[in-house]
Amino acid sequence: MIVILKHNVPQEKKEQLIAWLKKMGLTIHVSDGEYQTVIGLIGDTSWVDMDLVESLDIVDSVKRVSEPFKCCNRKFHPDDLVVEVGDVKIGGGHFAMIAGPCSVETEEQIVTVAKAVKAAGANLLRGGAFKPRTSPYDFAGLKAEGLELLKIARAETGLPIVTELMNIMDIPLFEDVDVIQVGARNMQNFDLLRELGKLDKPILLKRGLANTLKELLMSAEYIMASGNERVILCERGIRTFSDYMRNTLDLAAVPMLHELTHLPVIVDPSHATGIARMVPPMALAATAGGADGLIIEVHNDPVHALCDGAQSLRPEEYEKLAAKVFEIRKVVAS
Amino acid sequence: MIVILKHNVPQEKKEQLIAWLKKMGLTIHVSDGEYQTVIGLIGDTSWVDMDLVESLDIVDSVKRVSEPFKCCNRKFHPDDLVVEVGDVKIGGGHFAMIAGPCSVETEEQIVTVAKAVKAAGANLLRGGAFKPRTSPYDFAGLKAEGLELLKIARAETGLPIVTELMNIMDIPLFEDVDVIQVGARNMQNFDLLRELGKLDKPILLKRGLANTLKELLMSAEYIMASGNERVILCERGIRTFSDYMRNTLDLAAVPMLHELTHLPVIVDPSHATGIARMVPPMALAATAGGADGLIIEVHNDPVHALCDGAQSLRPEEYEKLAAKVFEIRKVVAS
Amino acid sequence: MIVILKHNVPQEKKEQLIAWLKKMGLTIHVSDGEYQTVIGLIGDTSWVDMDLVESLDIVDSVKRVSEPFKCCNRKFHPDDLVVEVGDVKIGGGHFAMIAGPCSVETEEQIVTVAKAVKAAGANLLRGGAFKPRTSPYDFAGLKAEGLELLKIARAETGLPIVTELMNIMDIPLFEDVDVIQVGARNMQNFDLLRELGKLDKPILLKRGLANTLKELLMSAEYIMASGNERVILCERGIRTFSDYMRNTLDLAAVPMLHELTHLPVIVDPSHATGIARMVPPMALAATAGGADGLIIEVHNDPVHALCDGAQSLRPEEYEKLAAKVFEIRKVVAS
Amino acid sequence: MIVILKHNVPQEKKEQLIAWLKKMGLTIHVSDGEYQTVIGLIGDTSWVDMDLVESLDIVDSVKRVSEPFKCCNRKFHPDDLVVEVGDVKIGGGHFAMIAGPCSVETEEQIVTVAKAVKAAGANLLRGGAFKPRTSPYDFAGLKAEGLELLKIARAETGLPIVTELMNIMDIPLFEDVDVIQVGARNMQNFDLLRELGKLDKPILLKRGLANTLKELLMSAEYIMASGNERVILCERGIRTFSDYMRNTLDLAAVPMLHELTHLPVIVDPSHATGIARMVPPMALAATAGGADGLIIEVHNDPVHALCDGAQSLRPEEYEKLAAKVFEIRKVVAS
Repeated sequence: MIVILKHNVPQEKKEQLIAWLKKMGLTIHVSDGEYQTVIGLIGDTSWVDMDLVESLDIVDSVKRVSEPFKCCNRKFHPDDLVVEVGDVKIGGGHFAMIAGPCSVETEEQIVTVAKAVKAAGANLLRGGAFKPRTSPYDFAGLKAEGLELLKIARAETGLPIVTELMNIMDIPLFEDVDVIQVGARNMQNFDLLRELGKLDKPILLKRGLANTLKELLMSAEYIMASGNERVILCERGIRTFSDYMRNTLDLAAVPMLHELTHLPVIVDPSHATGIARMVPPMALAATAGGADGLIIEVHNDPVHALCDGAQSLRPEEYEKLAAKVFEIRKVVAS
Repeated sequence: MIVILKHNVPQEKKEQLIAWLKKMGLTIHVSDGEYQTVIGLIGDTSWVDMDLVESLDIVDSVKRVSEPFKCCNRKFHPDDLVVEVGDVKIGGGHFAMIAGPCSVETEEQIVTVAKAVKAAGANLLRGGAFKPRTSPYDFAGLKAEGLELLKIARAETGLPIVTELMNIMDIPLFEDVDVIQVGARNMQNFDLLRELGKLDKPILLKRGLANTLKELLMSAEYIMASGNERVILCERGIRTFSDYMRNTLDLAAVPMLHELTHLPVIVDPSHATGIARMVPPMALAATAGGADGLIIEVHNDPVHALCDGAQSLRPEEYEKLAAKVFEIRKVVAS
Repeated sequence: MIVILKHNVPQEKKEQLIAWLKKMGLTIHVSDGEYQTVIGLIGDTSWVDMDLVESLDIVDSVKRVSEPFKCCNRKFHPDDLVVEVGDVKIGGGHFAMIAGPCSVETEEQIVTVAKAVKAAGANLLRGGAFKPRTSPYDFAGLKAEGLELLKIARAETGLPIVTELMNIMDIPLFEDVDVIQVGARNMQNFDLLRELGKLDKPILLKRGLANTLKELLMSAEYIMASGNERVILCERGIRTFSDYMRNTLDLAAVPMLHELTHLPVIVDPSHATGIARMVPPMALAATAGGADGLIIEVHNDPVHALCDGAQSLRPEEYEKLAAKVFEIRKVVAS
Repeated sequence: MIVILKHNVPQEKKEQLIAWLKKMGLTIHVSDGEYQTVIGLIGDTSWVDMDLVESLDIVDSVKRVSEPFKCCNRKFHPDDLVVEVGDVKIGGGHFAMIAGPCSVETEEQIVTVAKAVKAAGANLLRGGAFKPRTSPYDFAGLKAEGLELLKIARAETGLPIVTELMNIMDIPLFEDVDVIQVGARNMQNFDLLRELGKLDKPILLKRGLANTLKELLMSAEYIMASGNERVILCERGIRTFSDYMRNTLDLAAVPMLHELTHLPVIVDPSHATGIARMVPPMALAATAGGADGLIIEVHNDPVHALCDGAQSLRPEEYEKLAAKVFEIRKVVAS
């Protein structure tokens, strides 16, 4: 950590600060320049309150030199993490094609969609059983029953299942789920993250609507620091002034996350745009931009879907899209 | 709900849509204009998926006429809600002065601060026992022990206590707390909101960093629809491109929320700015702008505070500020 | 335009409003529902002040049914516009590869870069002669001399030139330029747009940092309404809370603009990201997402570039990227 | 400027960088820590391209120690600037009450409003003659004729006039205007700023919708570096995701700007909110927050105003507001 002092600080105040920092067990390097003094702090500074030091009268600014995340830091893990879900691999050159309906509605619906997306090339099945809804009056999912229907679809197709968990108390119900998804609104539900860190199961962690990449990585760190290193990150759009779509898909997050971390990074164009006809171009863009996978909503009857029908592709649209995704993958990988 | 069709829609498709809407039990009014057709839907449209209707080929746009929130809607509750916490009243002309340290640290600390803020005019004591932290490596509060220390401070000063709850499973520990705070990161933790709706205790609900006013009201609706009508809203800054402070305090939310809802609205200038010397001007601004109260961090020794020291006022600074707040209140109320 | 009245509006006030609207020459359709009254305005409502009507006591909300842009509206121009610059075509299946240095520095520099990007497949040359700089103390371009150097590079390579104009008074200097660029900061310099509308020359109009798509189209409308229909739109990143790159590239703007307008839409990944190593993935993503072209900074010696060296590719990096762009184009077009 | 190198950089590359920096005439201080090397650059670093240095392979990050603005920097001008406009003073304890209609429409209108706001306590008259409009089809002001009407109103009331200039070529028309306003959309019209720097006349510089405080100060710097030191800054709302008002008024900018610069800072609650009934609470909030003045739209007949009627106060509303503003001023100044 680097502390830059203001111009013309009284010597006495400077010494007080240095003494205080030393008392915290840090080694201090002072560099007096013509215009400013720079203090370098050596040692474990991860618990030093940057904001507090920055707020002191004599301090101009503070800069952290080492990132506060370790478990998910590319610096310490130069090789891409490959997350294995049964036979499916994600990351390090392996591409996840996750598809399925927003909500699980009936056995017929989920099995039909599962078969269709598998035929199109999907390798994982998604479907919501517990649904976060802005309004208390909206349909909130079939819950435990939905999980059972997902397992039936898995049995019929062999596709591992990905589904969202919202509440620590529901964890036991998810024992036989293949990948647990943490939604954008729960990205900083720290108690939940910590509990998921105790499981032996991949976690799909979605970026919150207003969260920075560093915050996303710190949330991954919560899971990993608790013992579970199999985290998949997901960019799904951020909230900006731009008003023509539900969210602004921040695709440049993909290559930047690849620099910062060894974790796989997938993209959700369905929630980012909220409009079915915008999903194919954004899915292709994400693939060309280097994503490790796509999570896309597909419904056999979007007009009658109980939630988010507006953003669901029909199976035949997904099939067409998937074919192009695989072609783009070849170009990217070449 | 109003559905506006595109120009030159085939008569057959229009009739299909109308038939479909009628099948959902809605009464339909069709108004054919020279340039467009407008369809009015009468009945309970709160469960109609606006996005889906909007995504249909023949539809130009959809507009909801009635707000989806009812319990917290000013239209149905013209009089300001006055929330009572022991002898303290909040809203409807009654002003909450909530103050105290970010984190409860020791008995001496919390009692000293409580006495100081009471002497300055505070009528409620705040203090964090369970702390949400971005990093898994940061101090996360004294937890149950912190709650006990808050109760000691309450016993010594008579100030009711306000403190944050993050996890449904901790609710039993909060039985003897006067006001439960829901933090910005949990504003859309819907399961938590629903449980808090079953308590007979005021809830202080903070706006999320990237949440609209409507979303804030829908979260209040979750609590109220479950039976607990004593909700206090809190503006605490939103996330924008503006980078010179932690967040952008959105003070115009105060008069706008007062139009939309009868619930009290308070402001947290400490978390919004993150800088102690910005707290007094923003506290005065919030008061002049019509807030029903202020929640402000005060610490007897900010430099050694275990968290958020940078944004805490010293007791003597708070005293000076409180005196001005009361003067501004007089002008606003006159 | 649709005006939705509040619930229970006095009949007298409603009639006053209707009379006032009629006096403005509009035809009025009133639809009284059980819960609300909807007033449809027929006629030329483009000059009606929506905000004013919305602010009236008895009005709940107002909705514009027809867009306020006409010249650039896809509804009236179903076929893609193909902009021709000499032999080069942009839009309607024709792809623009615009490349060159941020600033024109020397004859050797601009000619070297021009030859290199042409060899890699570029079909237009960019280079800044007049540079907008945040600081009055920064290098602001070679100005008229820079334009002359660009013409030399054009003579040597045959590539048409694209360069930025900032000031109406400089228009005469740009007579022999092939495409005039309007930068993000000037997107709403309406006097400038109006003057450019009088030229017979394609205009490359960049989206402002905080401008909506509708505002971008209204700015195109300024140029087109003055007589110049050859406008090319450019997405170059918007300003959001996201802080790990210079701006947030809003790629979903590409397919959405293609719906709204017939004008070509290109993407500038260099300014959007500000980091050279992020340019290739974002250039590929933009291509896969359906952009009609790319404008990319290339410099033979980025480390010594007088401006924006950090975001410039080396010629060999551009060549590698261009090859992949052309492959992706084939997939997209297939 | 501080350059922080990555961990384990080869000695040879480090020496190359240092040699390159020295060649630019800078004095270099190297501080080798256990985990990183920090290079301090002493000398005039205002022209060093931070982004470029940061983009080098071996560099972790770069931090500017001294701000790039000088003329408007509080560090070099500890005392508040008092801008004098005739007998009226702004800043340093003097409060500007600027009021008037959005657009000048007729002599009767502007004179009536001018007399009314003067009676209420206004000390400057605003009124738009040249109006920036998003649509080419909207009313763009009376132009030169509007300026003449403003002068008539000034003659009748003695109030100095404030009005917006959009185009360098119109400067001669503004010779007899008292304060020239630069609108939000022109905040980075650098050629315009430079020309205004050559005038002997106060400039009211509005913050752009998506501009940081540093960028606002750099734009003030353009004017001041050209010789005109009489700049008044104006906060008028920024663009964020928050959608219930036109913009988000960023009131904390006021105390922060007061720290960074000695220039006066006023607030425009009319444009920030766009809703007349939100103007009074935000005007009071701005006053309590320490603003040096308010610029407020007042119209004698808002319903028939040619532009922005929705945000205009009636004279009697302004009078009531002004009385409260003066009371709040007393509390703030005490």
